[in-house]
Amino acid sequence: MAKVLIDRDQVKSNYQDFLKYFPDFKTAYAIKSNPHQEIISIIDQSAGYYETASYSEIQYLLDLDIPAERIIFSNPVKARECIENALVAGVNKISFDSLDELKKFAIAQKNTGKKVHAIFRIEVSNEGSIWPLRQKFGAHEKFWDGIYDYIRTENLYLEGITFHVGSQAESLNVWELAMPKARRAFEKAFSYGLKPDLLNIGGGFPIFLGREIPSLREISEVIHRHLEDWKRDGIIIRNLYAEPGRYVSGSAGTLIANVIGVAERENQRWVFLDAGVFNGMMETIDGITYPTLSTGQGTPETVMLCGPTCDSVDRMFEVTIPSPKVDDRLYFSGAGAYTHVYSSNFNGFKQPDVQFMDDYDAIRESEGLLVPGNE
Amino acid sequence: MAKVLIDRDQVKSNYQDFLKYFPDFKTAYAIKSNPHQEIISIIDQSAGYYETASYSEIQYLLDLDIPAERIIFSNPVKARECIENALVAGVNKISFDSLDELKKFAIAQKNTGKKVHAIFRIEVSNEGSIWPLRQKFGAHEKFWDGIYDYIRTENLYLEGITFHVGSQAESLNVWELAMPKARRAFEKAFSYGLKPDLLNIGGGFPIFLGREIPSLREISEVIHRHLEDWKRDGIIIRNLYAEPGRYVSGSAGTLIANVIGVAERENQRWVFLDAGVFNGMMETIDGITYPTLSTGQGTPETVMLCGPTCDSVDRMFEVTIPSPKVDDRLYFSGAGAYTHVYSSNFNGFKQPDVQFMDDYDAIRESEGLLVPGNE
Repeated sequence: MAKVLIDRDQVKSNYQDFLKYFPDFKTAYAIKSNPHQEIISIIDQSAGYYETASYSEIQYLLDLDIPAERIIFSNPVKARECIENALVAGVNKISFDSLDELKKFAIAQKNTGKKVHAIFRIEVSNEGSIWPLRQKFGAHEKFWDGIYDYIRTENLYLEGITFHVGSQAESLNVWELAMPKARRAFEKAFSYGLKPDLLNIGGGFPIFLGREIPSLREISEVIHRHLEDWKRDGIIIRNLYAEPGRYVSGSAGTLIANVIGVAERENQRWVFLDAGVFNGMMETIDGITYPTLSTGQGTPETVMLCGPTCDSVDRMFEVTIPSPKVDDRLYFSGAGAYTHVYSSNFNGFKQPDVQFMDDYDAIRESEGLLVPGNE
Repeated sequence: MAKVLIDRDQVKSNYQDFLKYFPDFKTAYAIKSNPHQEIISIIDQSAGYYETASYSEIQYLLDLDIPAERIIFSNPVKARECIENALVAGVNKISFDSLDELKKFAIAQKNTGKKVHAIFRIEVSNEGSIWPLRQKFGAHEKFWDGIYDYIRTENLYLEGITFHVGSQAESLNVWELAMPKARRAFEKAFSYGLKPDLLNIGGGFPIFLGREIPSLREISEVIHRHLEDWKRDGIIIRNLYAEPGRYVSGSAGTLIANVIGVAERENQRWVFLDAGVFNGMMETIDGITYPTLSTGQGTPETVMLCGPTCDSVDRMFEVTIPSPKVDDRLYFSGAGAYTHVYSSNFNGFKQPDVQFMDDYDAIRESEGLLVPGNE
């Protein structure tokens, strides 16, 4: 059966990269990328922060004894009862990107007697992201006046500004473009007499998935250069947050799938695995590919990978690996994030097992993974 | 919370359509479309047949006391142990579409002492299908000789030929094209001394999803006209199968979702629902749309529908509905198939509840669903 192996040390070291390159930031792990209890616990050892997308995720963290003060609620659009539940639980840094959501904040405050620390999500360019946000989230600049006006009129508390450059952002440019836009959002807020002093730069920090990517150090340099400029001009941000998900859990995980069949098709061979789009590799439908190693031997061949279901959407990507045969194992690196979390039991196939270990490089070596795929 | 309501009577009447228009066929319900026990039981009341995609599905049916003789195993590519488990359980009509799979059949027969009744899946055109199979399954004609030669040499039992025109096939033409190709597959098999006498025409029978579709009667006429021609030319098919999934469960189901937020975006408003791509409406990513009714009032407006997760892929389709607001309910018809079966707990959101009832037209009426959407 397919499984996802997660290297605890790698999770720890990935999280520590943020403490190193973003020492002035609170690093809130996006638990949606991989909410496994072991990862939550590793972050907790550094007294780390957590980013959540639903009240269920908040409840899950509270049940693991994570203090509410270390949880932020960054989904910009939520059912009103979820906002109220979060407030009652003590989670008050809550994102929004529309007037409609602000109206829910006002009602939730009245119903709970607790104050929302509203974080305004603005729209920024996602160009260069492999999994862009396509307008789903973020307020377009033309709506900022209406939103700030409402906040002032209703006497809501605007604590900060946030943006998200899109998942797996492989170009530095998205941060170069986002920071000046965030600055404009602060300046416009100030002009309404509002005093936001928190910036959350969201997620999108890329991992190696076969293409060149900017390093965390380079991204940090861009962000900090802008923040220095802001400071020089009197814009002081007291609280800084980042929300890595994939960066923390992604590169720490390897998905191991077994070849269950190989079939000749008109133009190339298709390799059927026991993990596919519906049990681990959902992101491949939108262009994510994973560096792939095979235990197979023989002449390299370019094949199409697909999953075990009868569904045609369950096809993944082309890869060049030693001529595949049944019972070969394929190793997909960078697969610790956004993999098993999407899995269903469609067609009766099982979700991949998730296992934790301390050193899987040794295991990969012992498997005799000699010939690289698209790595 | 979002839910899927299924009308028992409609399931029954949909299945009976096959008994009416395909009286000479065994109708095997594709349980992957909706494996709910209530549907299995409705089919069982007609002593019906079942089509499965995995050994887990077979086990599930056996646990519900469905006799193995009424189960066919139509996934053309499977792990070898699944083939062996099926044979041991008494399920022997098993599909294949490659040499590799036939080799597994030979080993599985040796290991279990049971004979596979092999059903050969050929590739046919999927043009006109909304959810086409894109070469994942079906043997291209250039491989037929090699396959028949192997069957003859290894003395395997070729019981029949099958094809699949792709899910939700909205054009009669796919069946017009598939039947002559199936005939060629029979004729070539005869030329190798093989004697297949079973034809399985697969699934793809469409339901109303907002566009014109051929009726089951029309599809039946095409199939039977071809079968008459074959008979006249001495090609006698003793066993006929069809594998409807969506046709049986799809139109019997309505997905009810609640509006949790409405947000202005650059060019149009986006409506956030408590059901999205990852909790019920996966097929929308590939172009499936559902006729939509809203409990909302007011001027119709064209909006983009999306789900509750932070994921950008979780966007569905545009629909024109009365100006939406929080707590409106949307009714998606044709959503009894391929909806909750794809759902995961991504972002901590719940999978939709599935409920059965006898008459939901009355319920829809009582909700005051006055203004049609894209119906």
